[in-house]
Amino acid sequence: MALTVSRTEAGREFKVKDISQADFGRLEIELAEVEMPGLMACRAEFGPAQPLKNARITGSLHMTIQTAVLIETLTALGADVRWCSCNIFSTQDHAAAAIARDSASVFAWKGETLEEYWWCTEKALDWGPGGGPDLIVDDGGDATLLIHEGVKAEEEYDRSGKLPNPNVAENAEFRMVLSIIKEGLLIDPKRYRRMRDRLVGVSEETTTGVKRLYQMQASGTLLFPAINVNDSVTKSKFDNLYGCRHSLPDGLMRATDVMIAGKTAVVCGYGDVGKGCAAALKAAGARVIVTEIDPICALQALMEGVPVLTLEDVVEADIFVTTTGNKDIIMVSHMKQMKNNAIVCSIGHFDNEIDMLGLETHPGIKRTTIKPQTDRWVFPETNRGIIVLAEGRLMNLGCATGHPSFVMSCSFTNQVIAQL
Amino acid sequence: MALTVSRTEAGREFKVKDISQADFGRLEIELAEVEMPGLMACRAEFGPAQPLKNARITGSLHMTIQTAVLIETLTALGADVRWCSCNIFSTQDHAAAAIARDSASVFAWKGETLEEYWWCTEKALDWGPGGGPDLIVDDGGDATLLIHEGVKAEEEYDRSGKLPNPNVAENAEFRMVLSIIKEGLLIDPKRYRRMRDRLVGVSEETTTGVKRLYQMQASGTLLFPAINVNDSVTKSKFDNLYGCRHSLPDGLMRATDVMIAGKTAVVCGYGDVGKGCAAALKAAGARVIVTEIDPICALQALMEGVPVLTLEDVVEADIFVTTTGNKDIIMVSHMKQMKNNAIVCSIGHFDNEIDMLGLETHPGIKRTTIKPQTDRWVFPETNRGIIVLAEGRLMNLGCATGHPSFVMSCSFTNQVIAQL
Amino acid sequence: MALTVSRTEAGREFKVKDISQADFGRLEIELAEVEMPGLMACRAEFGPAQPLKNARITGSLHMTIQTAVLIETLTALGADVRWCSCNIFSTQDHAAAAIARDSASVFAWKGETLEEYWWCTEKALDWGPGGGPDLIVDDGGDATLLIHEGVKAEEEYDRSGKLPNPNVAENAEFRMVLSIIKEGLLIDPKRYRRMRDRLVGVSEETTTGVKRLYQMQASGTLLFPAINVNDSVTKSKFDNLYGCRHSLPDGLMRATDVMIAGKTAVVCGYGDVGKGCAAALKAAGARVIVTEIDPICALQALMEGVPVLTLEDVVEADIFVTTTGNKDIIMVSHMKQMKNNAIVCSIGHFDNEIDMLGLETHPGIKRTTIKPQTDRWVFPETNRGIIVLAEGRLMNLGCATGHPSFVMSCSFTNQVIAQL
Amino acid sequence: MALTVSRTEAGREFKVKDISQADFGRLEIELAEVEMPGLMACRAEFGPAQPLKNARITGSLHMTIQTAVLIETLTALGADVRWCSCNIFSTQDHAAAAIARDSASVFAWKGETLEEYWWCTEKALDWGPGGGPDLIVDDGGDATLLIHEGVKAEEEYDRSGKLPNPNVAENAEFRMVLSIIKEGLLIDPKRYRRMRDRLVGVSEETTTGVKRLYQMQASGTLLFPAINVNDSVTKSKFDNLYGCRHSLPDGLMRATDVMIAGKTAVVCGYGDVGKGCAAALKAAGARVIVTEIDPICALQALMEGVPVLTLEDVVEADIFVTTTGNKDIIMVSHMKQMKNNAIVCSIGHFDNEIDMLGLETHPGIKRTTIKPQTDRWVFPETNRGIIVLAEGRLMNLGCATGHPSFVMSCSFTNQVIAQL
Repeated sequence: MALTVSRTEAGREFKVKDISQADFGRLEIELAEVEMPGLMACRAEFGPAQPLKNARITGSLHMTIQTAVLIETLTALGADVRWCSCNIFSTQDHAAAAIARDSASVFAWKGETLEEYWWCTEKALDWGPGGGPDLIVDDGGDATLLIHEGVKAEEEYDRSGKLPNPNVAENAEFRMVLSIIKEGLLIDPKRYRRMRDRLVGVSEETTTGVKRLYQMQASGTLLFPAINVNDSVTKSKFDNLYGCRHSLPDGLMRATDVMIAGKTAVVCGYGDVGKGCAAALKAAGARVIVTEIDPICALQALMEGVPVLTLEDVVEADIFVTTTGNKDIIMVSHMKQMKNNAIVCSIGHFDNEIDMLGLETHPGIKRTTIKPQTDRWVFPETNRGIIVLAEGRLMNLGCATGHPSFVMSCSFTNQVIAQL
Repeated sequence: MALTVSRTEAGREFKVKDISQADFGRLEIELAEVEMPGLMACRAEFGPAQPLKNARITGSLHMTIQTAVLIETLTALGADVRWCSCNIFSTQDHAAAAIARDSASVFAWKGETLEEYWWCTEKALDWGPGGGPDLIVDDGGDATLLIHEGVKAEEEYDRSGKLPNPNVAENAEFRMVLSIIKEGLLIDPKRYRRMRDRLVGVSEETTTGVKRLYQMQASGTLLFPAINVNDSVTKSKFDNLYGCRHSLPDGLMRATDVMIAGKTAVVCGYGDVGKGCAAALKAAGARVIVTEIDPICALQALMEGVPVLTLEDVVEADIFVTTTGNKDIIMVSHMKQMKNNAIVCSIGHFDNEIDMLGLETHPGIKRTTIKPQTDRWVFPETNRGIIVLAEGRLMNLGCATGHPSFVMSCSFTNQVIAQL
Repeated sequence: MALTVSRTEAGREFKVKDISQADFGRLEIELAEVEMPGLMACRAEFGPAQPLKNARITGSLHMTIQTAVLIETLTALGADVRWCSCNIFSTQDHAAAAIARDSASVFAWKGETLEEYWWCTEKALDWGPGGGPDLIVDDGGDATLLIHEGVKAEEEYDRSGKLPNPNVAENAEFRMVLSIIKEGLLIDPKRYRRMRDRLVGVSEETTTGVKRLYQMQASGTLLFPAINVNDSVTKSKFDNLYGCRHSLPDGLMRATDVMIAGKTAVVCGYGDVGKGCAAALKAAGARVIVTEIDPICALQALMEGVPVLTLEDVVEADIFVTTTGNKDIIMVSHMKQMKNNAIVCSIGHFDNEIDMLGLETHPGIKRTTIKPQTDRWVFPETNRGIIVLAEGRLMNLGCATGHPSFVMSCSFTNQVIAQL
Repeated sequence: MALTVSRTEAGREFKVKDISQADFGRLEIELAEVEMPGLMACRAEFGPAQPLKNARITGSLHMTIQTAVLIETLTALGADVRWCSCNIFSTQDHAAAAIARDSASVFAWKGETLEEYWWCTEKALDWGPGGGPDLIVDDGGDATLLIHEGVKAEEEYDRSGKLPNPNVAENAEFRMVLSIIKEGLLIDPKRYRRMRDRLVGVSEETTTGVKRLYQMQASGTLLFPAINVNDSVTKSKFDNLYGCRHSLPDGLMRATDVMIAGKTAVVCGYGDVGKGCAAALKAAGARVIVTEIDPICALQALMEGVPVLTLEDVVEADIFVTTTGNKDIIMVSHMKQMKNNAIVCSIGHFDNEIDMLGLETHPGIKRTTIKPQTDRWVFPETNRGIIVLAEGRLMNLGCATGHPSFVMSCSFTNQVIAQL
């Protein structure tokens, strides 16, 4: 996609897949409003006082129908909003179109490249010469990361005149981050520091982003206040547990139409997300096995009748889902041993729970795209294939529509309160 | 769609939505073969002897990926096959394309009108001047019905010279049947009787079709032998129970993205289909209520902790699904009282479990199509809308992809055995 | 216990453990009546017409509180009743006391020897010089067996003068049967034939007894009509399924206080009884594994997420329960390999599903009775012990109180209807 | 029971129901050891170093088989132990006998009066002239309470010469506490202060006791350090949840033999205990309804398909269980409206969740004891009775044997660590 910005009649910037889907998006937004009583109550309670009047809010959070209701709650409270997705596959294009047309600047579409993804993030942060946002709604911490890396690079540039060198980045994604910062630096070497100075704070949605924030806090490098929305009980005990219980089977069925009953399914990790996934798979008639290193969680699994084994023990299973929030869970060495048409996916935030790099670079591997976000990878040694969903990323958003409105109402209401 | 027949290079007739989807269909058929061990075992065991050599088989059964594996099992055993769908929404177009290109004559696409539907059925039965099929695979009994009505009309025409009068038909669908027979009669007044004479028998897939057959048997009007596949234990106790447990939530989620957890769901009927639906909804976190007139089934519901009430008692629920195989279960008088955005659907074979006629003809009713097979109907009296799936028909095939391959392998293997 | 018959003030014969428990039994019978609406409805509907007026009914069926309500329903309809238990451990002594005092002749106590058991059976059939009962309520077929063997022996005696030889019996139990018949023969050589001639028929409660009856019918040796109560849907689908779901964990907990959650439990057989047991164990948090030779039942287990393996594969489990109705399921060779304090029990009717003979005769085996019906058997080879419940017999009646009133109301109402 | 102390041959004091049950207790203790790996691991790891050498430990905690394994773990680590139960119905007499004979001074039997209960508590604290214990294991806080009240009374007596006046106590139980202190004061007016001075600390097992401790901490009246064992994750998330899931149905079945399937059951409170109870009842086939005032817990119930209503809405249910830890949950006004033979019980620590005082003093109420801990109370107005278990106290210990060994191993291991 050519990276050019469009404007609505009213002059608001946007870049979406197809603005003509706005009507369809609006219909689904209206349905979702009925299912999101928490957000609608915020509009009713706080709307009249306009507490976010003139506040600039940048969001980096899956641009779905549910997020659309969040955005329009923020605008109903007076805010100006710019938005991007926090995952390359998670945008619902009709939601993006409706919001772009009616309510906020949106830069998001389903199936972005990494380059496009970071371009969108940068655009969402770019409020023009006057600087950056007052508030950030972050999910996974990428907007926060960009500002932090930007400030670091600007300070280094001030000190030593050195520009960031994308070629030394440890992975493709971080290379994009450094490239964007480098380009920006040449144009305006104080930009991210102005953002930092203006910024009142960030509210972070998910485990991964929270972990990053705690690391920065511990090392003294956190530049602005942050609110941890993830660990509020109405988020982690609802969104993580009940949301995943809903959206894991949804993603599996839309992507593969596989019958879950009778299958052996391995859930890596038995935290709240893993508990939700295991409950859904058991309920659908699968034999569920958990891998878990935390002894408390492992004992909980056993007390629910779920065996706890190592991945090596169960590599012959039918379905694998990672829920850990850690990296290097399912490696290419595991995948090579799996049975033909085993399904491998992650419901965690990033794509490194599954060793996608190892898979892509495996000698002689052959990839067939059955349909978008559903690929079969055939190993030359065995001629057996495995089915990988959403390129190893967030499968419930890549292959289905993510968490349903009701549960998102619970966690997004926390976001609104946090922003207030 | 213009009702014209196309031909493959090899000269085989077909009419599908988009023949270019054949490659995509083939990929999914290959995946499904792995999930359908029963059918693949039939190919391995019976294929060499070619027991269906030169047999003409007409099928009227949802033209899905799973059915594609059934069709290619029949052709692997030597049969010539012509196929149509038995529901206007149940065709998967990529499956139809792959079969049309590679294996059999297909007349089916997703979203047929009633007129198109019966044109397809007639085409699937039309083996040219030499007459009709040797065998029929029927689902719901429409192919069987067409022959029976055709024979009746031909005999009446012989006797009295009277042509059928479509205008006296009691509903739109039967009007189409009579129209098609009338047109055929003017061209060839012995056609359906030649079909009857050639036909060795029919194997019937589902409850509804079986009920029709028993009625015809009881009244002495059944023209050829029929095998009841529906009541084999590997069909009713697997397909009905486990298939619906899988495909009901799949259809609900694809059509509406609604969170099932926390909702009150009413399942009308607690036979095998109802048991599967109730199990799925409970497992997803809904509060389930059953309506049931059979005392044994009602007591079974109670022993599973599911209250049994009348529909009148629970008209305030969130989700309604009919599973009865009977008609006039949810009437427009019920729908008028439902809460805003209540979801109403049927997983039974026909569209008269829900009073669609009453809904469509309700004075001042307003229908908004959110997306195909998902409509919101707003009552003028209350300004509340209800969401009706798949126009009140088979929602798991209309809104999702029906039963998964594995469970269909069980019931379709019965079909192959029955055909043998 | 000395085998002497007592008499109530009114002259009715009985032999029970402790007649002073009659008040306690009466209190529990009154509670059970509230839970047995089917039987109470029979009393209300049929009582006034006294359809069983003067009918002599002999029952051989677990003498529990629930059976007490059945007996008093039969007497409320006019019958005279004599009763024994059909299992040496299944009597509830307070129930027996209350019935003996108030309503019918009872010969039953918890913990009979085999000799005592058959003495009780003979007494229940003995209506004095006038012959036997008009009707039999049988459970497992022992009363029916005694009459059939008695008639056979009498006819042989008539023909050849030969008395039955208990020493050639293939097991200890049949030796008792032949002894009792032999003794009776010397006193009255026409007794069982008079019984046969008077008897109108038998209604049989359970699978085991029904199998015996079908065998006799097939071989032409069945002497009187029999009604199969077991296979009525309100029996097999309720009593077998829901009754066992209730009483299996009840028996396990009363006998061993073991925590079921976190354990691996093996259910041998996945018919209705096995389904109920597996459901209960899963619900309690066990990891359940099924052994099953019927392919349909095995596939049902898999579709519910329950693995199907052979007993050899899972001999390391924690809990084993047999539900098959067949013999030689868990052999001493299996038990020898089990882990220390593995629990082994049967919920089937007879004690030969578990190889008790092999266990008792294993060289050097050491038995410790923890409490009645809970024994630990230590193998000398390994010094590991296993816990065997109710001596390998019906554990739910031996270790707990069997099926609860409500579900027995369903099956016993069938008995009353069958007797009518 | 005459309140006299016996002595073993070795001179250790005890008072139990029947010392001859020691062998039976020992057999069950040996079984329990296999099920309590945490405690056995403590013996293996810490035993050799004898870290509790010569420590005097007083325990006030249900004197069950599981507690016996805890006590013998403490003695294996070197401690001297005196023990009483913390509930009048929770002692298992064979466990008490075995410990009294073999390991520690025990003052406990099933079915104590309130006077006996507090006598036992005082005896367990009484280490002779040398003063009190070094450590306390408390459950519900009664031992802690006695010392605090004792110290308070002694100080008042020093100051003003006033003795405590039992007649002004607000309930029967507190009257006993004051009586015991008063009697002691006359003999030794410094006793409880010497205890306080010697005492190193207390570890508290349960919610109720922890609440008391927090109150004392807040008011500055806590006299010695306390460790909250209740809130360790291996206690509250295991014992409360999985323990109650096991022992609630166990208690219901032993007390009433009622079929849970098909019943409507009300669980008051949906914390960890309530969640365990609701899970057990659902699993057994009941229709479960929750009452809950905490909005998070209420939403969790809804997301699991469990309706949340007020007690007034569901007073027509079959089974009621309180799990709240608060008082005045089920009042006599509710009980009066219940259906005949409704079952009412509490699984919480104290007997004031259910309004037993209101029930006992209801004019014309009639109580029939079906068997110990199972009473039927008939209201004169309606002639309907309700079944109250364990006199409204801890039903799982009163009517069954409490939590199974495995789960108690988890929480008791915390106790051992806390004591260390």
